[in-house]
Amino acid sequence: MTTSGDTQNPKDAPKAGLKSAEDALSELKAHQAVVSDLSQAQAVLSWDENVYLPAGAAAARGQQLATLSKVIHERATDPRIGEWLELLESSNAADTKADTDTKADTDTDKTALLRETRRGFDHATKLPGEFVETFTRARSAAQSAWVGARAASDFSQFAPHLEKMVELNLRHADFLGFELHPYDALHDLYEPGSSTDKVRAVFAELRDATVPLVRDIAERGRDVSDAPVRQTFPEAEQEAFGVRMAAAFGYDFEHGRLDRTVHPFATSFSKYDVRITTRYEPGFLNPALFGTLHEAGHAMYEQGISSDYDRSVLGQAVSLGIHESQSRLWENLVGRSRGFWRWAYPQLQETFPEQLGGVSQDDFYAAVNKVEPSLIRVEADEVTYNLHVMVRFELELALLEGALKVSELPEAWNAKYKEYLGVVPPNDAEGCLQDIHWSIGMMGYFPTYTLGNIMSVQLFEAAKAAQPTLETDLEQGRFDGLLGWLRENVHEHGSRYQPTELLKRATGSDLDAGPYVAYLNKKFRALYGVEGDGADK
Amino acid sequence: MTTSGDTQNPKDAPKAGLKSAEDALSELKAHQAVVSDLSQAQAVLSWDENVYLPAGAAAARGQQLATLSKVIHERATDPRIGEWLELLESSNAADTKADTDTKADTDTDKTALLRETRRGFDHATKLPGEFVETFTRARSAAQSAWVGARAASDFSQFAPHLEKMVELNLRHADFLGFELHPYDALHDLYEPGSSTDKVRAVFAELRDATVPLVRDIAERGRDVSDAPVRQTFPEAEQEAFGVRMAAAFGYDFEHGRLDRTVHPFATSFSKYDVRITTRYEPGFLNPALFGTLHEAGHAMYEQGISSDYDRSVLGQAVSLGIHESQSRLWENLVGRSRGFWRWAYPQLQETFPEQLGGVSQDDFYAAVNKVEPSLIRVEADEVTYNLHVMVRFELELALLEGALKVSELPEAWNAKYKEYLGVVPPNDAEGCLQDIHWSIGMMGYFPTYTLGNIMSVQLFEAAKAAQPTLETDLEQGRFDGLLGWLRENVHEHGSRYQPTELLKRATGSDLDAGPYVAYLNKKFRALYGVEGDGADK
Repeated sequence: MTTSGDTQNPKDAPKAGLKSAEDALSELKAHQAVVSDLSQAQAVLSWDENVYLPAGAAAARGQQLATLSKVIHERATDPRIGEWLELLESSNAADTKADTDTKADTDTDKTALLRETRRGFDHATKLPGEFVETFTRARSAAQSAWVGARAASDFSQFAPHLEKMVELNLRHADFLGFELHPYDALHDLYEPGSSTDKVRAVFAELRDATVPLVRDIAERGRDVSDAPVRQTFPEAEQEAFGVRMAAAFGYDFEHGRLDRTVHPFATSFSKYDVRITTRYEPGFLNPALFGTLHEAGHAMYEQGISSDYDRSVLGQAVSLGIHESQSRLWENLVGRSRGFWRWAYPQLQETFPEQLGGVSQDDFYAAVNKVEPSLIRVEADEVTYNLHVMVRFELELALLEGALKVSELPEAWNAKYKEYLGVVPPNDAEGCLQDIHWSIGMMGYFPTYTLGNIMSVQLFEAAKAAQPTLETDLEQGRFDGLLGWLRENVHEHGSRYQPTELLKRATGSDLDAGPYVAYLNKKFRALYGVEGDGADK
Repeated sequence: MTTSGDTQNPKDAPKAGLKSAEDALSELKAHQAVVSDLSQAQAVLSWDENVYLPAGAAAARGQQLATLSKVIHERATDPRIGEWLELLESSNAADTKADTDTKADTDTDKTALLRETRRGFDHATKLPGEFVETFTRARSAAQSAWVGARAASDFSQFAPHLEKMVELNLRHADFLGFELHPYDALHDLYEPGSSTDKVRAVFAELRDATVPLVRDIAERGRDVSDAPVRQTFPEAEQEAFGVRMAAAFGYDFEHGRLDRTVHPFATSFSKYDVRITTRYEPGFLNPALFGTLHEAGHAMYEQGISSDYDRSVLGQAVSLGIHESQSRLWENLVGRSRGFWRWAYPQLQETFPEQLGGVSQDDFYAAVNKVEPSLIRVEADEVTYNLHVMVRFELELALLEGALKVSELPEAWNAKYKEYLGVVPPNDAEGCLQDIHWSIGMMGYFPTYTLGNIMSVQLFEAAKAAQPTLETDLEQGRFDGLLGWLRENVHEHGSRYQPTELLKRATGSDLDAGPYVAYLNKKFRALYGVEGDGADK
């Protein structure tokens, strides 16, 4: 800390005994660095919990994580943060006014830092301790009940907990504040700058295109068999091939690793250590293969954040939708594309000569792109996936509005599946009990999956426009051009720009379902031999 | 917190706004529970660092660990601890005086809690922040220099750092305080209640018995070959056999796991999660086999601590010597015994029929017990191991006393190896640069290895006296009697009793090298066919 003349005049001294805005900024950054380290430590414990925890250690690990949460929360709500922010916000407003035209990168960073800090601090301090504790305990009980209810396929075991979750989410929204709809406050936690109305609008456009596409494929599409991917594939070879493809994409194993788990995920302990997990089904190639590419997509985003933002709030991914755009881009727009398999399929055939030696590239491409309305979201194909998300969005909205009672959820769920997908779950385990989200109190989260899909195509189209050779590059196993474009336009910015601004800067557009609809129609109408684009249905 | 009448008279109110000793105790315990959770989190990050960290993540992990250390240190030096302690110590002294004859377990626990808390708090607060920081930075530099020096076998690269370590250890001892020798203060960090004089005395007795035993074996002993354990043993089978034996001993895999690492260790994240690691040499059976049994011995101690001490300072192992007594007991007194191999060898032969099908049980027993003076401590047999420790103890004492200059260390090291073991290191990498301890600032630590060996025999003899069938049990693969005795007499107490008191309660004796000397003479004179017990040489 340097001293300044200000200290000689106590009347000018800002709060918290600070000497200047410069000092406040460096103190704030030092404070955030500690919180960042502790949060990363917490992520290590969670990773270990999911990957390597001995069976009998669950309660002890829960206690360790609870203590870390509490210690982090104490620091994240330190009143000095509010004082630093007040000082810096007024100083920054003055600077910006005086200096609008010459705004440099460092000014953008500072503004972004204040925005993200304010957002996190307000969120943390708006919630009374009593509420946080009640919510934590209720979530823990709800998750246990959900596990039991799903195993028994008995919604009544989970219903009272879901009622509690609806009530607590409404209280949560009240504490955070909102103008139009409590869902706005909740959804904003996961996708800053988005809103219920925006989601409604893009979902409507997507639904109007998807439902006829699914119908055309079902009624008039040619037969596509997934038999090629439903053979016996030994795990070691599945893993070796997945690792080879992820590394080819650009996932950096020097700063990451792949482990096995029941519910795959990616997690970051700083950009220097971003880990992915997957699970292997010996009788089905898709889960581990596309799961690995998906998680590698998430991980490459985190690995690509600028090192300028190490230990800073700006070093975090900016939203779940942007995160999902990266995983889906690598999983689907690359990993399920015809061009990619021109390069990759001969290698896969070499890995599995007995299983795939006699399967043509066309048949394999069709097999990994088979469209089939199904019951389970996480197993859904590209076309039907978003219908699963829409069902959840509409139902959680109705629950929060009170238009739907919890007791009516199973019936409403099944009716929507019948309407959108033409299938009806035979039981609640395969119906409204399939996802963990509501049991851990997450409402407003589901739409980000579809927002990610939509943005993945907007970003991919922009990358293609910027790099005319991109598609032939992919056909030849050259992924560095695409990754480089994503690094420069998405990854490195961390939380520097809000999602909407990031998307606009990268693509020139706002959120737009159009390119995604066009992509789905083009790819799947060609594959299934059904003409039209569904627009006139 | 309950309120008490005391609050109505402010003059009686103790410091820190406390209402009663009872409140102080519960506040102290709650505070320690948080520190315990954070320390366990730190242990998880260290485990991961050693076992699964990606190559490029070392600096980030170092930063996370440094922050956790700082956060833990802040809490461990919270001035409220001093206030709680003052209140509780005076209240406890009064209680103890009034009630000496009816001291119940809970009183012992309370007294132990105050003793361990006082010990930790005084240690943490006696060191100025400036010193802790200097020491931390110097250690970090010294460790890096040591890695380089060892790789280049160039002592001169490490010498200035070792000088710094000697100086800082002396300052450390000054801060802690001591009566006779600075070594007392340092050694006490690892073995409370021990002292330089005690170590000198038992080491002298042990040396006087070991040197002639080694000489007799070398000069007159029969030839013993370790060829049976020097064959090719595939790793997967080595691992499976190690796991089977560790589980048979009683290491609980529901609350632990075995992973691979370069430098094997055991670590505890609470008694519910105690993990071990090992390394496999495809051409040598001993390192992984006896390493796994050794680490399982450490781990069973931690797994056996009473759950009454969860999240308490009493839930920690009481000393490194006691810890080592448990690992060596299972590794050597059980794992290298004739009786154990009566039961285990047929199973090992089944695991490795090609390698061991034609090797007799006697030849195998001899092979795993071959005595051979060597250069490297961690590879030494039971007989010569302690001579390696004595060399280090004497040299670090001489360095701290100023009787030996750092520049003279290699020469002094080689002279002692010649004198005690009859071998001379061809270079410093295999000489005075082989151990990490001094590079990370640990002086006073080495003797605990030999104290552990000595106590392992004292404890084993006491267990045999208490359980007449113990030896025949081991021959039949029944280990629960031995483990049960250790649980009851050692493990469950955690830090309830000081090491000396624990040993006395368990064995009826003080530290005594006699049983260990008798054990070595009996076992190895029989194996090598050299009469006598060395006492009259």
